[in-house]
Amino acid sequence: MCLNTHVILIYYLFYMQIRKKVLSKNKISFIRSLKEKKYRLIHCMFVAEGNKIITELIESKHTLTEEIFATERWLADNKKLVSGKGLKITPVSAGEIQKISSFKTPQEVLAVLRMPESHINPADIKDQLVLALDAIQDPGNFGTMIRLCDWFGIRHIVCSGDTADCFNPKVLQATMGSIFRVNVWYTELFEFIRDASEKKTEIYGTFTEGSNVYTSELTTSGILILGNESRGIRKKIWPYITQKLVIPSFNRQQDAADSLNVATAAAIFCSEFRRRAAEV
Amino acid sequence: MCLNTHVILIYYLFYMQIRKKVLSKNKISFIRSLKEKKYRLIHCMFVAEGNKIITELIESKHTLTEEIFATERWLADNKKLVSGKGLKITPVSAGEIQKISSFKTPQEVLAVLRMPESHINPADIKDQLVLALDAIQDPGNFGTMIRLCDWFGIRHIVCSGDTADCFNPKVLQATMGSIFRVNVWYTELFEFIRDASEKKTEIYGTFTEGSNVYTSELTTSGILILGNESRGIRKKIWPYITQKLVIPSFNRQQDAADSLNVATAAAIFCSEFRRRAAEV
Repeated sequence: MCLNTHVILIYYLFYMQIRKKVLSKNKISFIRSLKEKKYRLIHCMFVAEGNKIITELIESKHTLTEEIFATERWLADNKKLVSGKGLKITPVSAGEIQKISSFKTPQEVLAVLRMPESHINPADIKDQLVLALDAIQDPGNFGTMIRLCDWFGIRHIVCSGDTADCFNPKVLQATMGSIFRVNVWYTELFEFIRDASEKKTEIYGTFTEGSNVYTSELTTSGILILGNESRGIRKKIWPYITQKLVIPSFNRQQDAADSLNVATAAAIFCSEFRRRAAEV
Repeated sequence: MCLNTHVILIYYLFYMQIRKKVLSKNKISFIRSLKEKKYRLIHCMFVAEGNKIITELIESKHTLTEEIFATERWLADNKKLVSGKGLKITPVSAGEIQKISSFKTPQEVLAVLRMPESHINPADIKDQLVLALDAIQDPGNFGTMIRLCDWFGIRHIVCSGDTADCFNPKVLQATMGSIFRVNVWYTELFEFIRDASEKKTEIYGTFTEGSNVYTSELTTSGILILGNESRGIRKKIWPYITQKLVIPSFNRQQDAADSLNVATAAAIFCSEFRRRAAEV
């Protein structure tokens, strides 16, 4: 080999070395910053992680994908899924993905996404069953409810401003990809309910003194409100609720459970609304 | 004061100092060891934490309480609850409770309990609806299902040996105290189901190709099996299932959710079984 060939070879190896270090410090710290709601709102971006959610993301033709970071192994296993979709994909090492991940157990793939626009048009929810969440705090509960809505074809969830952030990594993980098919809106819930009430929308709320959900009349459309894990639905909203509902306890022991987990209750209510609608 | 009085006073102060340090290193390390399943099984003991669960524990007259550790503040707030119950209570500082707690956010109260005996008598479950769990892994899902059973008056849960440990701190927390009212049994699930099948017990299992739970005939007693979060019910059990059930998805979009969270599914199935039983 002549000297030139050597020089070219060295440059090439050096270039490959640089190429391997794809993630700059700035990029790592940017992605890490998106763990916090504050920075998600500043940049209007969020991070989704893990094979299940990213597969759903790509399959749902979600147009908000900014960049996907994946290990060579994941890319090799998912060639068919990712090819020809015009996605910006950056191969990274397992170590690098651990640096940008929100989870202790490292994932093989992660995506940075732009947040969808969040403005609810009342016309969108006319003649539909809509879930309204008043200050739900637990990310697992919230994510499970988004997944539940996807299953039951409930397309819109309206949340009070103090409900957990749907782009929180733990919420996203619990949605198992349903976040890309269900619209989550944040609004002044009290005003939203008051306005809906003026338009004669049926407004259902869950209360311990409510009427038995199994034997109450239920409409196919309307708003079903579920309240905070500890304090329930805030008092300000109570006057607009047209029907108070409860899931009867079948436990006759005196010291039985005094409540159900909010996501469990949501599941039973949605199931009952959909079962009735199917009966009609 | 004479010399003797001085000596007595010094001894008294020294004694008070010792008394304040109530938790010995050995005790701390013993309680901490109960975070691990291995040590829970060796000692046949477990730890329950937090105001809600300990209140339920004391109110349910649970006889398995070994010792309660609580801050002075919690004891002052719960004088009425704890007095006259013959409980062994050790006041501890907030710092000490943090040392023995399994949670990042310190609790005000914690109890060490003996495990209840775990041997299921088939006669106990005759003519009842029983939940069977095949390798449920997520502690939140598991705890939520125990709470759900308490609500619906389902008194027994039978689990495969590889289901999460019901005395895991995260499971206990999700039960919100229902662990003291629902019996959780670990057994060779396959054999249990096979034996029940021989006794002509109805055995329901959840399958994507099952029949619609809302329109299928459901008996008031029987065993309802829910399978592992990823792989469902293990194949070995399939031949003994007398009815395969599914919760129909009401989402007509092509890319809709392909499954529900297992605790969500359990909630909907139990609700439907109980609703039908009430109709009879």
